Amino acid sequence: MPPPLAQVRETTFRVRYAETDMMGIVHHSNYLIYLEAGRIDFTHQINMPYVDLETNGYSLAVTEIEIRYHAPARFDQSITVKTWVEGLRSRLITFGYEVVDTETQQILVTARTRLICVDHQNQVKRIPESWFRALQAVSLKQ
Amino acid sequence: MPPPLAQVRETTFRVRYAETDMMGIVHHSNYLIYLEAGRIDFTHQINMPYVDLETNGYSLAVTEIEIRYHAPARFDQSITVKTWVEGLRSRLITFGYEVVDTETQQILVTARTRLICVDHQNQVKRIPESWFRALQAVSLKQ
Amino acid sequence: MPPPLAQVRETTFRVRYAETDMMGIVHHSNYLIYLEAGRIDFTHQINMPYVDLETNGYSLAVTEIEIRYHAPARFDQSITVKTWVEGLRSRLITFGYEVVDTETQQILVTARTRLICVDHQNQVKRIPESWFRALQAVSLKQ
Amino acid sequence: MPPPLAQVRETTFRVRYAETDMMGIVHHSNYLIYLEAGRIDFTHQINMPYVDLETNGYSLAVTEIEIRYHAPARFDQSITVKTWVEGLRSRLITFGYEVVDTETQQILVTARTRLICVDHQNQVKRIPESWFRALQAVSLKQ
Repeated sequence: MPPPLAQVRETTFRVRYAETDMMGIVHHSNYLIYLEAGRIDFTHQINMPYVDLETNGYSLAVTEIEIRYHAPARFDQSITVKTWVEGLRSRLITFGYEVVDTETQQILVTARTRLICVDHQNQVKRIPESWFRALQAVSLKQ
Repeated sequence: MPPPLAQVRETTFRVRYAETDMMGIVHHSNYLIYLEAGRIDFTHQINMPYVDLETNGYSLAVTEIEIRYHAPARFDQSITVKTWVEGLRSRLITFGYEVVDTETQQILVTARTRLICVDHQNQVKRIPESWFRALQAVSLKQ
Repeated sequence: MPPPLAQVRETTFRVRYAETDMMGIVHHSNYLIYLEAGRIDFTHQINMPYVDLETNGYSLAVTEIEIRYHAPARFDQSITVKTWVEGLRSRLITFGYEVVDTETQQILVTARTRLICVDHQNQVKRIPESWFRALQAVSLKQ
Repeated sequence: MPPPLAQVRETTFRVRYAETDMMGIVHHSNYLIYLEAGRIDFTHQINMPYVDLETNGYSLAVTEIEIRYHAPARFDQSITVKTWVEGLRSRLITFGYEVVDTETQQILVTARTRLICVDHQNQVKRIPESWFRALQAVSLKQ
């Protein structure tokens, strides 16, 4: 569950056929791509598109993921990724997520990903100031 | 690190071009596919191929993953997935993993995946007896 | 280019990070997934969702693809898949596609995919009558 | 079928679970990744690893693919990609492929991919001389 104070942003899309596997459900690896899509859309929604961070010479590299699978998603299902900032330090950011069925709001997956700021030589860097402040602003509701 | 008593099996392959991303390294989602490849090869190596479990009407569905990214893998790099049974209960199995550079043995990723035995109607089931015993046998070195 | 008489439907989405490769552009294999997404959205737009065809025991299996890559797509770019019915026979359907930059309409990829109707035992079947008529209706503008 | 004069190289691997889809077979997009794996292994087998070409500032960018799907591959099946040089010009190379079941040699997929030599600014370039000669040497059996 998102912490009471963090702002949550939502990203909705349909499950693609190629994302299913022979069990007839979404293959579990695809949720990491869904979380990433949610995270990137989060940065669009706060007007700090992740692509600009990359253009400026930085990346947020994933260092750790915890993910729990509660119920399967299926082909063509509309799903919503709910994303929020769960923790923020000068070089590290932790995002929290819920992936739910768009209509019923049934929880499909919950997850947390930790990312570290690096430059394009893979050196750890402080998150650029303007990004840090924007992320800080949405990590608390007020 | 694999626990001292569990048997470890190794699976080696090269990173595919399609598995890289614009950071020039393997995209983090692909490691879940590498872990799965390691897990499935593990069952081949103990002569209980996972495909037979599926043919008999069962699946091992992933319910939880913890994964840490220590160093990036790159295109064409030979990597080795080390897989072992970390925990075993009647309906649940936990695998542990290290993904390393084949040559230097540098650790790239460590992970743990928890799987639950289900039938093709997605009902939780006991792991079939012969499978359970085979997995139990390799979860301890003697 | 779409033939002058066929109805064209459009599907727009952003390139995901995971779809890029170490050349910094979308890996060429992902366009097959984009074409499929366009094709499936096409069936939504004509009120004959592909998922219903599958539920009724049929699949459209890809038998042949021709694809040309004109310009690369990049991370976060908004792209549009234009899809139309290029040929229709009792058991076969050919879709044509253009993938363009949503804003500039620059052509990125052109393609044609041929699909055959099969049942879930992989036997070739006639396309069910209601589907055939719906597809026929949009293969000509009038 | 490979032309009588070209040298054919083989690459064998098992189908991964993640590569299947809800039809229970390998999703058609994965064959582009298999062809690429065959092509890259081809360059290893002729001692001109593709990774070195990239390190030297060049890439072979895919410009066109034709692919035909003859029979489905399934999870855990051992498949073999047969790769050969079908055409070679100063800036262009065409590879031909057959993907077969390793054991029965049943043909699953046939394909042709055309690639163009570019530098890392995406400018078309001549294939470097040593590469051109090595590829020329294997495009004819003698």
